Amino acid sequence: MAKIVECIPNFSEGRNQEVIEGLVSTAKSVAGVTLLDYSSDSSHNRSVFTLVGDQDAIQEVAFQLVKYACENIDMTKHEGEHPRMGATDVLPFVPIKDITTAECVEISKKVAERINKELDIPIFLYEESASRPSRKNLAKIRKGQFEGMAEKLLEEDWEPDYGERKVHPSAGVTAVGARMPLVAFNVNLDTDNLEIANKIAKIIRGSGGGYKYCKAIGVMLEDRQIAQVSMNMVNFEKCSLYRTFETIKFEAKRYGVRVIGSEIIGLAPAKALVDVAEYYLQVEDFDYGKQVLENHLLG
Amino acid sequence: MAKIVECIPNFSEGRNQEVIEGLVSTAKSVAGVTLLDYSSDSSHNRSVFTLVGDQDAIQEVAFQLVKYACENIDMTKHEGEHPRMGATDVLPFVPIKDITTAECVEISKKVAERINKELDIPIFLYEESASRPSRKNLAKIRKGQFEGMAEKLLEEDWEPDYGERKVHPSAGVTAVGARMPLVAFNVNLDTDNLEIANKIAKIIRGSGGGYKYCKAIGVMLEDRQIAQVSMNMVNFEKCSLYRTFETIKFEAKRYGVRVIGSEIIGLAPAKALVDVAEYYLQVEDFDYGKQVLENHLLG
Repeated sequence: MAKIVECIPNFSEGRNQEVIEGLVSTAKSVAGVTLLDYSSDSSHNRSVFTLVGDQDAIQEVAFQLVKYACENIDMTKHEGEHPRMGATDVLPFVPIKDITTAECVEISKKVAERINKELDIPIFLYEESASRPSRKNLAKIRKGQFEGMAEKLLEEDWEPDYGERKVHPSAGVTAVGARMPLVAFNVNLDTDNLEIANKIAKIIRGSGGGYKYCKAIGVMLEDRQIAQVSMNMVNFEKCSLYRTFETIKFEAKRYGVRVIGSEIIGLAPAKALVDVAEYYLQVEDFDYGKQVLENHLLG
Repeated sequence: MAKIVECIPNFSEGRNQEVIEGLVSTAKSVAGVTLLDYSSDSSHNRSVFTLVGDQDAIQEVAFQLVKYACENIDMTKHEGEHPRMGATDVLPFVPIKDITTAECVEISKKVAERINKELDIPIFLYEESASRPSRKNLAKIRKGQFEGMAEKLLEEDWEPDYGERKVHPSAGVTAVGARMPLVAFNVNLDTDNLEIANKIAKIIRGSGGGYKYCKAIGVMLEDRQIAQVSMNMVNFEKCSLYRTFETIKFEAKRYGVRVIGSEIIGLAPAKALVDVAEYYLQVEDFDYGKQVLENHLLG
């Protein structure tokens, strides 16, 4: 069985078509890797790529992309709305099939070491790969952004995990790590009162005392005039979609509001949904790896 | 995208280890095919193999297996409890990924033609491949069994779809066809009254006026002293698991009985379970092919 890993590099370039096309060709240059998606945002001046491949190929393509970005993106000239600190700003590895998060941590460390060694970019390990709790959160690592990094690296707490306390002059600093796949899951309410969606979002999300692996905000769907609880499920194994769905249902009742539907945005791993089916059908002893037919198909 | 097909040949040999091992080696001899499972039953004197592979490889391995069975199983000497009419008794093709049932019908016809041409075994097409409604049902085709086939083939209605009205002297007759994947789905009740499970099974199954694509019987789980509605879901796209599950729940209520769990036996396609999740989460506009990450992984 091939061990399948997803990689979602974020690059600090969303305007220069030539550079974006160079990243695309680089993404397609390694056998065993599929470029699932990429999108560029001009106001953010940032591009996000989604690649999957076997564990060896994904490491190679990740390095080649970081190398291309290092050679073609100059952070001293970068402007954009989105916070950023490097040409390749963040490089997460996500376990997809027949591979554990721990193995993805190892992969992230190998790639981080190579990037630093061959390109001299200082690396912070983040999320599951973080060397200490204060480095789990990307926002904390990135605080100060590219312009503040030279000074930040000299602070006692901010010696890079790989490399010297010295920013790469044009490519800045990169965060590399392993994390679980995200599922973007939104639940629609039969109310046009955004305040209700906000209150439920606050209760349900980890930062509000709710589910640790759920991020949530209230959103108004203007065209339909309904309020929505919009979530990022950051670890569907530790917090399944049915759990937030049922919780939103019973919290909404307090306001006399019903759940009228939901949305899954973009890609979701099959297991995130099979887990939901197992719950509602009350399935005893289901073995996802062995009993789902498709799991026997990938060489 | 490779078009992936499952094939589940049933052979009239469940005792002679040498022949069974010969079938196993043949099953493993074609590149692009995986032998997922095989099991032999001595009292039935029958073996069931489960293979998956791309559409070309599966046709080749199916033919090679039928050839091996033809050369190594003598139906004139066969004894066993299970009804049978040929060395390869039945050869179904099942669409798994990026392929339609209609395409599997074409595959079944191509393999049937080759079997008849090269091995001179008469073929009946059955299930989705059937040439007329009276040949959809395997039990009707097989009625009379091997011993009665010589006479049956001479009856007006029973000219084979491929070949003359003449049984292969040692390999008999084979049924070839396309069908949807089966899901074996059992629902457990908190009662030791088998009669209740039988009554619900009768209501829910197609033959009792219930769901056309559901077969069901009541079963007693002796070790747990609970009754079970045991089902074969023969087309999960036309009748999803949640539908029979919810129906069993409300039918059981009449007897003051609750559903306490369920079982999925053996393999199930991911889509059969993702459909269930979509229902319970009330997901709007989910696109299984595009949004399930794993669907982008198979070459």
